[in-house]
Parts: sequence; C-alpha cells; structure tokens
Amino acid sequence: MAAIRNLPVDGRRLWDDLMRLAEITDPGEPYTRRSFSPRFLQGRSWLAERFQDAGLTVSIDPAGNLIGRLAGSEAGAKTIVIGSHSDTVPSGGRFDGAAGVITALEIVRAMRESSFHPRHNIEVVDFLAEEPSEYGLSCVGSRGLSGKLSADMKGYTNAGGERLDEAIARVGGNAAALDGPMRDDIAAFFELHIEQGIVLEQSSMDIGIVSGIVGITRIEIVFSGSADHAGTTPMHLRRDASLAAADIISAIGREAQRLAGRGEGHFVATTGVIEVLPNAANVVPREVRLIVDARSEKRETMEEFVRFVDVSTQQVAQQARVERTRFARLSDTVPVACDERLRRMLGESAQALGFSVMPLASGAGHDAAFMAQIAPAAMIFIPCKDGKSHTPEEWAEPEAIAAGAAVIFAAVQRFDAEERI
Amino acid sequence: MAAIRNLPVDGRRLWDDLMRLAEITDPGEPYTRRSFSPRFLQGRSWLAERFQDAGLTVSIDPAGNLIGRLAGSEAGAKTIVIGSHSDTVPSGGRFDGAAGVITALEIVRAMRESSFHPRHNIEVVDFLAEEPSEYGLSCVGSRGLSGKLSADMKGYTNAGGERLDEAIARVGGNAAALDGPMRDDIAAFFELHIEQGIVLEQSSMDIGIVSGIVGITRIEIVFSGSADHAGTTPMHLRRDASLAAADIISAIGREAQRLAGRGEGHFVATTGVIEVLPNAANVVPREVRLIVDARSEKRETMEEFVRFVDVSTQQVAQQARVERTRFARLSDTVPVACDERLRRMLGESAQALGFSVMPLASGAGHDAAFMAQIAPAAMIFIPCKDGKSHTPEEWAEPEAIAAGAAVIFAAVQRFDAEERI
Repeated sequence: MAAIRNLPVDGRRLWDDLMRLAEITDPGEPYTRRSFSPRFLQGRSWLAERFQDAGLTVSIDPAGNLIGRLAGSEAGAKTIVIGSHSDTVPSGGRFDGAAGVITALEIVRAMRESSFHPRHNIEVVDFLAEEPSEYGLSCVGSRGLSGKLSADMKGYTNAGGERLDEAIARVGGNAAALDGPMRDDIAAFFELHIEQGIVLEQSSMDIGIVSGIVGITRIEIVFSGSADHAGTTPMHLRRDASLAAADIISAIGREAQRLAGRGEGHFVATTGVIEVLPNAANVVPREVRLIVDARSEKRETMEEFVRFVDVSTQQVAQQARVERTRFARLSDTVPVACDERLRRMLGESAQALGFSVMPLASGAGHDAAFMAQIAPAAMIFIPCKDGKSHTPEEWAEPEAIAAGAAVIFAAVQRFDAEERI
Repeated sequence: MAAIRNLPVDGRRLWDDLMRLAEITDPGEPYTRRSFSPRFLQGRSWLAERFQDAGLTVSIDPAGNLIGRLAGSEAGAKTIVIGSHSDTVPSGGRFDGAAGVITALEIVRAMRESSFHPRHNIEVVDFLAEEPSEYGLSCVGSRGLSGKLSADMKGYTNAGGERLDEAIARVGGNAAALDGPMRDDIAAFFELHIEQGIVLEQSSMDIGIVSGIVGITRIEIVFSGSADHAGTTPMHLRRDASLAAADIISAIGREAQRLAGRGEGHFVATTGVIEVLPNAANVVPREVRLIVDARSEKRETMEEFVRFVDVSTQQVAQQARVERTRFARLSDTVPVACDERLRRMLGESAQALGFSVMPLASGAGHDAAFMAQIAPAAMIFIPCKDGKSHTPEEWAEPEAIAAGAAVIFAAVQRFDAEERI
C-alpha cells in the first residue's frame, strides 16, 4: 500500500478528526451517537465547525441532512456530493459512517490546499439517521432527499410518542417540504464506507469498487403444530413444528450457497431469528417462527429464492404434518446498481495511485442506494479488521482510510474535468 | 365399554369425589394445588377426612406421603399399596394424579361394601410432590419411600430459600429418617393414571397395561460459530451455528423415528428447547443451544441414541465450520419394567370385566417407577381426551375412571387370594 504521507490528502489530519468525533459519545457506552439524540447534535455542531473551518457554507436541508457547500467556478454547474452519516448504532464503532463524512471533509480541505478549483459545486453531506432509528426507520435523510420518505413514515413514532416529522424538525429539517425528490442538480454522488465484511481483508485488496447495493427481502415464516407431551406422544403421531423449521433452515442454507455460487452477483440468506413455543424440554414444539433475511444484487435471483422458500416451506410443513400458518415478506427493497462511469473513474483513480482494487457488492444498505435513485452514485469500500462492525471493536487502519479518501478525491477531479456542463 | 353401574366400584361416587377435590384449587388458575402450598395441604385435609370416613387409619410417613391403612385379616401379611399423587402443576388438570388417589380410596370403600376382607393390609397413598416442585425435584415422596432421596436433594431450596427437608417437615414428614428404603413390607403396588397421550384413544382401547416406565435422558448441546453481518458475509465464509443446529434437529427426528419403528419398545426424542444468539434478523447466529429429551423403554436403545447424537453433532459442527462447545447429559434415569405377574393379573382382570386392553409403555415418569425399586409394581393407563394433560382441558370420562378402578380392584382381589403369605 502507498504510504500515507505521499497521498494528495492529509491522512493524519483525517484520522485525528475521526478520533475526535469518536470522543463525542455517550460515555457509558462508547461509541454511541444515536440519531436525534443530544449527543448526535453535539457531534453535528462539532462537524459544522469543521465544515466552516474548511471554508464551506453550512446548512441543514429539509430532510435534516447537514451540508457543507463549496461553490464551483463555473456558473450553472451541477453539484458533486460526497458523504455518508455520523450517527451510530448503540455501542457501535468509530468508522461506520463517520469515516465517509470525515473523508468528504478532508477531500475539500485537500482541494483548497492543492489549489484545485472545481468547476462543479462540491457538497459534503452528513445524512440524517442512516442507522435504524428509534422511529423504526433507517436512511431517513437520504430517503427524504430522494423523495422516498412517505407520509406513513413521517408519522412513525418513537417509544416516547414523538413523530418522525417532529424529530426531523427538531434537528433543523422540515418534513412537510419532502413530497418528492428534493434535488435535480446532483451530477454525481460518492461515498466511502468500511466494508463491514471480510472479503477485502481475506483477498488482501486495498479498495472495493461497489458494483451495486443488494436488495433486502425479509420473510417471516410460522409453522404451527401441536404441543404434545414429549414422553407420551409416539413419533408417528406428532405434529412437531421444529422438524419443519429445521428442514427449511437447512434447505435455505443449501439454496443460498447454490445461488451465491452461480457467479451472478452477491447473494446471501440467513435465518437469524428462530423462536420456539413453548420452548420447554418436555413438550413437542407447537410453533416455530423464523425470520429469513435474503440479500441479492439481482432482483431475479431474489424472486427465484422467494419462490423456492415458498414451495419448500409448504413441502416441509406437509412432511412434518404441521401447518405453515404464515409466509410473508416483512420488507422488500430492490437492488441498486452503482453508476458504471463513476465506478470506472474510481477504479482508474485507485490503480493510478497504486492501490489494488476489486469489484464488490454491498451486502448492507447505504445512503448511496437512495442517492442512486436521483443521481449517478458510486461507493468504495475499505477493509475493516475481521469484518467487524456495529461494535466498539470495529477498526480500519488510518492508511486504509487515507487511501480511500485519495481515490475519491482523484475520481472527483476526473469527473469534474470530464463532465460536460 | 361396560356400563358404569354394573361395576364392583361406585363410579359416580368416585367421580363426585374427584370433582370435589378439583374444587380445592387456587381460584385464579384452576386447577392448581402445587405441592407444599397451603392449597395442597387443604386438599390433603379433605383427603384425610375421606380416608377416615372409609375406615382407614390415617398417617403421614417420613417422606411426607399421606397414607390411609386398612389392616388385613391375616397376621404377618404384607401390604398392598394403591395410590398416586394429589399435587398438580400450575394450571394443571383434574385427573393427573388425583384420579389414581381417589380410585384407591374408592377401591377400599368398595371392598368394605362388598364384604371383601383382604388378608393383606391395604394402603391408600397420596405421594408427596410427584410433579416438579418449587425445589427442583419431582417424585419427592416415592423417592423418599424407596430410599432414593439423596442428602443433596434434601438440601435443594426453593426461590424463598427454604430447604426441601424443611418443607417435608412442614407437611408432616421427617427427611432425617430417610436414609435408605423405608419399607420392606410391600407385597404389591398398583397405580392408575391417565395416559397423558393419545395411543389408547386412537386405538379405541379401554385400558393400557403399562409394560414399563421409560428412562429419560436429557442432553444439552451448544454450537458456537461467529456472529457475522448477515448482508456482507459471503455464504462460504460463514460459521453459522443455526445450520449445525438445524441439521442435528432433523437427524434426531429421523433417528428417533427409526428407533421407535424397530419394535423394541417405546422410544421418543424431542428437541424441545432451541435458543439462538443473538437472534437478530441481520446477524448470522453465533450460538445455538439445544435441549434434547429422549425416552426409552430399553437402556441399550438409549445408549445407542446418545452415541448417535454424539457422533452426529460432531459431524454437523464440522460441516458448518462451527464448534460443538457443549455436549452433556443434564439428567439420565434408567427405564423400569413393571412386574410381570401383576401385569398379567391386571390384564386378566380387565378382560374378565369385558374391557379391551393393550400393553403400553409409560413415556412419562411416575411414582410407580420408584416403587418398582422396592416392590413388585404395576400401573394401568386410562384414555384421556386428545392426550391433553397438564392443562385445565385435561379430561377423562367418568366411565373410563370407573373401569380402571374396577380393574385394579379385581387385580387386588386376585393378588390377595393367590399370594402365599
């Protein structure tokens, strides 16, 4: 890997800012800056000051996103947006989101110091509430900006009864103004994020060029049998819901492996939730509830998988003489492909800087998935230790973040030069 | 089925007493008379009065069993014991246990009314705490009587800190006197119990002659993998504990079916407890804990099953790239065969009365399993509706109970006549 000091960004300054932002945390549970919380707003105040120090004009848009803007040199030019999110999950890490925001800030600082005057406007964005919030919704800011925050969602409430639109107003936004895509002036969106997986680390690659962001489908399955006495009920007279559940968990594992191995993009499926009733050693399980989380880069693959689970759950239920009393998609988002041209620019920039690159799908949702719906959007991943994320142990090397920042900076320069205005 | 009024016992009186005992319940949750509770003692006072009304001498033995005794006509004769238990699980039924106690009482009343004077002493017993008690132990009274209540067990405490030996003293026993089999004078033990299963009902049989009481082995299994991100971790890099768990649950189901189908006695196995960590939709399961409950009429079959689970858990762990971090027998009791001669007498008595009979293993534990360790012991099962037990819906027909009582009465008469004193 190229040494941190030879890059056109100041990796040390970037790292120091990232660590300072990390210090703004609920002290009892580092690292915690949950969206809409006082600690989150404290982090944003600090960020806004850094944006101003970097010569940016600071504002908060109607969706509650914190924006630092640098005007471009050419009248009528559109805007290049770079950013991610500063909120965290409870007891999360220092890099998920924040690394992308501070990277964007550092790129603007590096521009000014290198006397690079972009033709396009440049905006650094801290999207509101990318992580699942207390209001039961993630990606609040990028949804709002892209016109995907529905009236229903605005009415979601937290445990204290506050509505999401009220919470957005509390952080400086105005949800009433969000009734469609807010912007048509964005020429390109770039986001840096830690991989939150182990592919780059295991492949010893510097940069992942994100090919697309998976669609996520969650399926709830309930099998209902009979809670018979585990001692007195002969095997052939049982209606054991756990046997149907076990068979489908195994089948889903095998099918996911098959679909992933077909070489048609990222596919994973997980039965992460397994709940048994009555869950007592001496009672045959009466009911088992499963939640299957499947993620696919291709919508057709997801539809094939859902059909497989639908048919297979009926088969295993019949074999175990139980009922499949529920089969429902709890949520269902479509995959988003990253912009091909931006991906090419990112790849060429990385290689020019001497970094190894590989294409990689994002198995997690990101603000870029919403931004892709209103503008060309692209992402890069940097390696994170052992793939750990959403935990205080989350770690990315300072050199890896600096490398990612340099790659996006270079891609922004290419885009700014090549784009016809 | 023979009509209730033609039997040598008074089925109506038996039923009425059973319903009166059922009325002694915690009012908020019928039917509840948990061992050692004030309500349980209230039930016992009522029972003791009934015993006295029937001409029995009432006492409580050192193990806390309530005993009503009728002296035999022949000096030096041993004792025929008939009984079951009057305690219930929380929100249990009216028949499990109580039907056997009231049956024993009715048999003595019928003896006196039919001017049958037994040569043997006859005892009606209400065993203490057959159901799992607050002290973490079941079959307290029959264990104590048969010398199987260990010093350890006497020290078990309930949530309030009371020791089991203190609780036994509180109900009139004396645990300090229990340091071996208490009795060598029991010639035969008979117990009537509802089947708590659906075999008799499905076979349309009146009486099950219990061949033996299963040994129960509980195995705890823990698989430990890695709690990776369900979106970003490719299938081939996962260590998913749920896949090992699913495979073993299926394999246990198949193996139990195979062993049960071999025609070498009752065998069942159930994975009733399944606990997943962290049990979140977007996280690959890191750990799954299972409890397997297996019950076998033959010890060799149980040992074969435990070896199968031992080997198979190692295999499925390897396949899923997880560790089997625990494999332990939580409890392990050996099966008990019922006395062949008493079984023959019960079968012949039933057939002479016109009832259909079938041999049947007991898949649940009973006081008879302990009594069998110090005396010839036998049990009969009567049908119960839909096999339901340990629930207020538990139901046995008055005719079915009367039939069972008549069968045991006839068997006691045969035994009393045939037995050399």
